[in-house]
Amino acid sequence: MTLGRFGLRKNVSRRDALKLLTVGAAGITAESLVPGSFGPSSDQSREIDVVIVGAGFAGLVAARNLLRAGKRVVLLEARDRVGGRVKGGELAGHLVDVGGMWLGPTQTRLLALINEYGFHTTPQFDKGKIIVDLNGKRVYAEADRTGLDSAAQAEYDRVVGELSRLSAQVPLDAPWTMPQAEQFDTITVEQWLESQTKNRDFMAFLQLCTRTQFTAEPFQMSLLYFLFYLRSGDSFDVQLGYDANSAQAFRVKETMHQLAVRVSKEIEKAIVLEAPVTEISQDENGVTAKSAKGEWRGNYAIVAVPLPLSVRISYRPALPPQRDILAQHMPMGSVIKCLFAYDKPFWRARGLSGITTSDAPPSAGFFDISPADSEIGILGAFIEAHNAINWTGRPMQERKKLMVDRIVSFFGPEAANPIDYEDQDWPSEIWSRGCYGATMAPGMMTTAAKTIRQPFGRIHWAGTETSPRWMGYIDGAIRSGERVADEVRTLLNRK
Amino acid sequence: MTLGRFGLRKNVSRRDALKLLTVGAAGITAESLVPGSFGPSSDQSREIDVVIVGAGFAGLVAARNLLRAGKRVVLLEARDRVGGRVKGGELAGHLVDVGGMWLGPTQTRLLALINEYGFHTTPQFDKGKIIVDLNGKRVYAEADRTGLDSAAQAEYDRVVGELSRLSAQVPLDAPWTMPQAEQFDTITVEQWLESQTKNRDFMAFLQLCTRTQFTAEPFQMSLLYFLFYLRSGDSFDVQLGYDANSAQAFRVKETMHQLAVRVSKEIEKAIVLEAPVTEISQDENGVTAKSAKGEWRGNYAIVAVPLPLSVRISYRPALPPQRDILAQHMPMGSVIKCLFAYDKPFWRARGLSGITTSDAPPSAGFFDISPADSEIGILGAFIEAHNAINWTGRPMQERKKLMVDRIVSFFGPEAANPIDYEDQDWPSEIWSRGCYGATMAPGMMTTAAKTIRQPFGRIHWAGTETSPRWMGYIDGAIRSGERVADEVRTLLNRK
Repeated sequence: MTLGRFGLRKNVSRRDALKLLTVGAAGITAESLVPGSFGPSSDQSREIDVVIVGAGFAGLVAARNLLRAGKRVVLLEARDRVGGRVKGGELAGHLVDVGGMWLGPTQTRLLALINEYGFHTTPQFDKGKIIVDLNGKRVYAEADRTGLDSAAQAEYDRVVGELSRLSAQVPLDAPWTMPQAEQFDTITVEQWLESQTKNRDFMAFLQLCTRTQFTAEPFQMSLLYFLFYLRSGDSFDVQLGYDANSAQAFRVKETMHQLAVRVSKEIEKAIVLEAPVTEISQDENGVTAKSAKGEWRGNYAIVAVPLPLSVRISYRPALPPQRDILAQHMPMGSVIKCLFAYDKPFWRARGLSGITTSDAPPSAGFFDISPADSEIGILGAFIEAHNAINWTGRPMQERKKLMVDRIVSFFGPEAANPIDYEDQDWPSEIWSRGCYGATMAPGMMTTAAKTIRQPFGRIHWAGTETSPRWMGYIDGAIRSGERVADEVRTLLNRK
Repeated sequence: MTLGRFGLRKNVSRRDALKLLTVGAAGITAESLVPGSFGPSSDQSREIDVVIVGAGFAGLVAARNLLRAGKRVVLLEARDRVGGRVKGGELAGHLVDVGGMWLGPTQTRLLALINEYGFHTTPQFDKGKIIVDLNGKRVYAEADRTGLDSAAQAEYDRVVGELSRLSAQVPLDAPWTMPQAEQFDTITVEQWLESQTKNRDFMAFLQLCTRTQFTAEPFQMSLLYFLFYLRSGDSFDVQLGYDANSAQAFRVKETMHQLAVRVSKEIEKAIVLEAPVTEISQDENGVTAKSAKGEWRGNYAIVAVPLPLSVRISYRPALPPQRDILAQHMPMGSVIKCLFAYDKPFWRARGLSGITTSDAPPSAGFFDISPADSEIGILGAFIEAHNAINWTGRPMQERKKLMVDRIVSFFGPEAANPIDYEDQDWPSEIWSRGCYGATMAPGMMTTAAKTIRQPFGRIHWAGTETSPRWMGYIDGAIRSGERVADEVRTLLNRK
């Protein structure tokens, strides 16, 4: 077994998975967004049909779909770029993703977008042995093994089986209706795990899986939320692997961020960058959004920012209390994404996949994301959850040293001098304040979360946190954008 | 034993406790704040020493102390009134507190303020039997008893003893240094309780105590935070009783809100109401606060709003990530305060104290807060935690019916027709978004909370959530205001 964001290898060929993709004929030239190249011309109307807040994939897709339906739209983005939690960077002269990057074969809405725009997927490398480091013991294992000893593996099979059995009972549209929902919503994942096993290695393993999957600690989230999330993203196995069936099966060759840029090009006249929205007011006739770039008036608003941050906008009239309560109990995960470039992927020559799995700070694991069309090697890693809380806000050079030392401990002295380093400290990024997604603390899913997709008057909600399917993933963001565009288009057509 | 906000009766006379008070010679006439009567005259300078945000007790006391030290101050308040989570109302012609109300004998900073301004305390009524309703069983008990049967009482003595032993080890200034801090911060109060006892009545009892004390469920908060809080407010016994030693020993005769108004009168030239602050920027020379009433420039800023809401202000440069993370994992409790007026306190004639204790929805208990100088009877109650999430945002008349039916079930048909009803739905109040205080989810106290009182450049933090002593109480708010005024005064004098 191999872990990335993170999961089980199965004997399914990558070719089978790729059949789901019709690979586009041509890639696009990588482009950078130049702030100011977007936005309304001075004669563009401030009176439109829909004001959309947030140009991550949810907002981009909502805007695109409404524009294609002939609606007048403005898409207001606080940053000087599109993509939200998907962000581009450069490492040793290569374009890289310093935000969301992976996808899997059942993420069909993201795959459709990749296909539509003629982008390409590239498989995740996982050939060779993995290194598993648990409770201070280090083993080399085949990539299709967990590296757990037989006792821990037996516990893995039994307890993960129970997770699968329970999560299969979660109705994705209404998790609060599953059997025992209220009970499961009052306990944490950690608490449940402790009731299931005494095996220390397996416990450490499940803890690190939770940490890497949610960028939160297992003692911080509701078991009911965890079960919902597992089903939302197919299963524990799919979410936690690197294989061809997993949620980490592929990356986008041109980078995921360039895909966001490409969508934005289609609708660039509607996008206004560096326009943080501070207030949304509504009355019986419409909505008004105030931003740093002035006001827009529309029939409806779509808010497509991370749910916990959505309450930092002022609403007039005020938001219903349940939504505010939900936001207060649904913190963003904490993660720092780190990338290391080497002259070559030297670990491969030694039969290593570059994949490590560890319960020790600062990172649950490394992985190999070397480009296919280059000699250089790239390792990636996340500093997750509590480790991220300890390392966020500090100088990048401190994190580089910390992480390079860790790579050396796995791959030897050749790892000591990367030719380039880059990291993205998501909790410090003020328009995300964390990554990957927001997780629900105990008690929310059976109470305030029932309103998660409920429009507030003329204000509709999008963002991956609102998606029943692939919640927390880019695919979920796209689905939420499609759903909310449908909602609002239907209302507009009814007028 | 009697519970309110909520606690143990001890054989200490109220007189002993009252010795701590020098009762002022004269009360003040109750006054209402007229919006617009406060605020800067047109020639008041916008260039000052300190900009303070939030006119709850923390901000009021900080402003007052700095003004007394000769500093130039503006106190910006979003609402049209002062007091924050302390708020006045009227019931059957009587002034009442629809927010914070009670105090106890070791809340010495609040007592000093009451004394200084010549206000008076009035004892909490607790004569007669209490009604205890647990797991569907209802008993009448003496006010100095818990109403638990002998098995449950034995568990109470043992487990609350253990809580006392553990909380005594918490250093209030640095709870993260207590023995086993990391372990205690990864488990919830509910989880710990389940490891301690199997007695269903005692479990229900401790659950409802947590609910009423924190307006949050025991499965939502860190055990380490719980232990810290118990010590911060003396002890479980003190915090959970109505007796003369307890945190509910007294109310303010003139109302707590009038005390806030009285403090504000001393500094009224410095207060600007209806001035929500949207942005605080700082540079090497000072701070600038933008509000709906314009901008102010000072040497320092003090932010004295509830911690989770403090991140809804924009900061330039951005807040350090740890503070944002803490705010995201430190939700406000949820509570609705309900008040019922009757022609007379009819329950007293039947030997009842008016005090009830219950684990059943919608409220953990009722209490008698009839005025001493009137014939009328007033019952109060809170709808707490998950019950509040279910009932917030709904029409007041629905809550009135719900709660009156509940009173009838305890006190009989005479309770069916109150002469007046009032409630305060705190989660719907946009500048508090909950009450009484914010509680820490697991994992915060040993990580991000270490920065809770750490100034961010020229921005200093106040509010009851920042107080090591009486955190979550009005006394803690006052202490935080005194502390932050000292910090900033020292810096100003150093110039």
